[in-house]
Amino acid sequence: MPRLKLTLEYEGTRYVGWQVQPNGRSLQAVMEEALSRLLSEPVSVRSAGRTDSGVHATGQVICFDTERVLPMKAYVMGLNGLLPHDVAVVDAVEAPEGFDPRRWSRGKRYRYRLNNRRTRSPLHRTTHWEVFAPLDVEAMRRASAHLLGRHDFSAFRAADCQAKHAVREVRKITVEGEAGGAISIVVEGTAFLKHMVRNLVGTLVDVGKGKRPEAWVAEVLASRNRKLAGQTAPPQGLVLEQVFYADGPPPRTPGGEADVDEDEG
Amino acid sequence: MPRLKLTLEYEGTRYVGWQVQPNGRSLQAVMEEALSRLLSEPVSVRSAGRTDSGVHATGQVICFDTERVLPMKAYVMGLNGLLPHDVAVVDAVEAPEGFDPRRWSRGKRYRYRLNNRRTRSPLHRTTHWEVFAPLDVEAMRRASAHLLGRHDFSAFRAADCQAKHAVREVRKITVEGEAGGAISIVVEGTAFLKHMVRNLVGTLVDVGKGKRPEAWVAEVLASRNRKLAGQTAPPQGLVLEQVFYADGPPPRTPGGEADVDEDEG
Repeated sequence: MPRLKLTLEYEGTRYVGWQVQPNGRSLQAVMEEALSRLLSEPVSVRSAGRTDSGVHATGQVICFDTERVLPMKAYVMGLNGLLPHDVAVVDAVEAPEGFDPRRWSRGKRYRYRLNNRRTRSPLHRTTHWEVFAPLDVEAMRRASAHLLGRHDFSAFRAADCQAKHAVREVRKITVEGEAGGAISIVVEGTAFLKHMVRNLVGTLVDVGKGKRPEAWVAEVLASRNRKLAGQTAPPQGLVLEQVFYADGPPPRTPGGEADVDEDEG
Repeated sequence: MPRLKLTLEYEGTRYVGWQVQPNGRSLQAVMEEALSRLLSEPVSVRSAGRTDSGVHATGQVICFDTERVLPMKAYVMGLNGLLPHDVAVVDAVEAPEGFDPRRWSRGKRYRYRLNNRRTRSPLHRTTHWEVFAPLDVEAMRRASAHLLGRHDFSAFRAADCQAKHAVREVRKITVEGEAGGAISIVVEGTAFLKHMVRNLVGTLVDVGKGKRPEAWVAEVLASRNRKLAGQTAPPQGLVLEQVFYADGPPPRTPGGEADVDEDEG
């Protein structure tokens, strides 16, 4: 059966998150309903990762199977006519044989935005974390370098994270001050543990406030102890920007499991 | 009686605009209610300009008079505790004798944002105009240069604009492509006619689409005929970013009136 790959943008504010939950509206349910209406058949989708309530995406990737293959433009235009104003399809392509958006992922890029001003920002209330204490962006940037590379990120995983192991590779991490007092933290890695980006951000913010020295980030990482890290940054600052793919699934690491994305948000 | 000057940020989506209207909630009413509660006395405010429904501000300026002068921090923190999530005070200072936010204005800077992608953007739905046809940013930038300087902007004023004359000076206009297919148009001028920025943007977009040559913008301007200009760009892309002041009101132009801001949005 043909498999389709869609790229989604959404604002997560109104949703309980990607995954279907008993307590409210999920993005997965919204996508499955729109696809089922478009194709007049029940459709199940799989995503590259789950995003938590309040977390956004500009490059979430999903797939589904259908015998009723329409022109790709019909998926984009047709679904965008059926979807609510805070969800849209930005691209549709036929997926290669066996494609799985989670297992085939070669990496992901997340962006976390915060405001560092004396007052809250109405225009950023659903997209930024408001941190009122002055932050030292240079110190945060230097501290972030300790997180680069392949490490056991147990200190930065949520208590209920269900990944089998906590070894992940952070390929890139940048901390940039922006116009108007905003700060943008970009993290690219092979895969992410539950709440990993938000826990990294909360830890870097403690350094930015001067509560902790830069080298403390390396200590927390080495400890593998979640209790030592900073707070979990709130969800609204986080955006899943891109999921990277190659022609097939990533090779297994010798003697071990591939990095598999567990959760994020 | 002491006069206070406040700088405001707001998201205009939920409001009928700055000015009190019979048909819904206005930003002026929200500010006056919060100030009246904070000071336990009726308070009237005046603003640097009216913004239309859906138009935002990061630097709207208002003033009000009160005998009950609190520490400046109390205005910022106290009002932000009373105001709804989409309005905030970002600064408070004592105003000079005779200060009037509209008459003392030496100029304003507006930003207009649009998205130029094939699909709508959920994360930008309240802050950008979605233009799906591909735009030539360079052509828009070259065309915008025709608008620089002091001109009669009658071709770009709303039909119901009540300004006494239409001569205004555009001091700066920039058109910049941004990451992700967004375009940002910044217009700085002495003062603005009703819908002037939105009409300029609609006209530049016609050039960007290739519907009109660059020189057409100069023809429209010279015609002083509103019917020749492009469409009024929708309100959600517009932000009042800054109002400029000096130590007193601007000098009257010889033999004429000062540029006085009429309306915008």
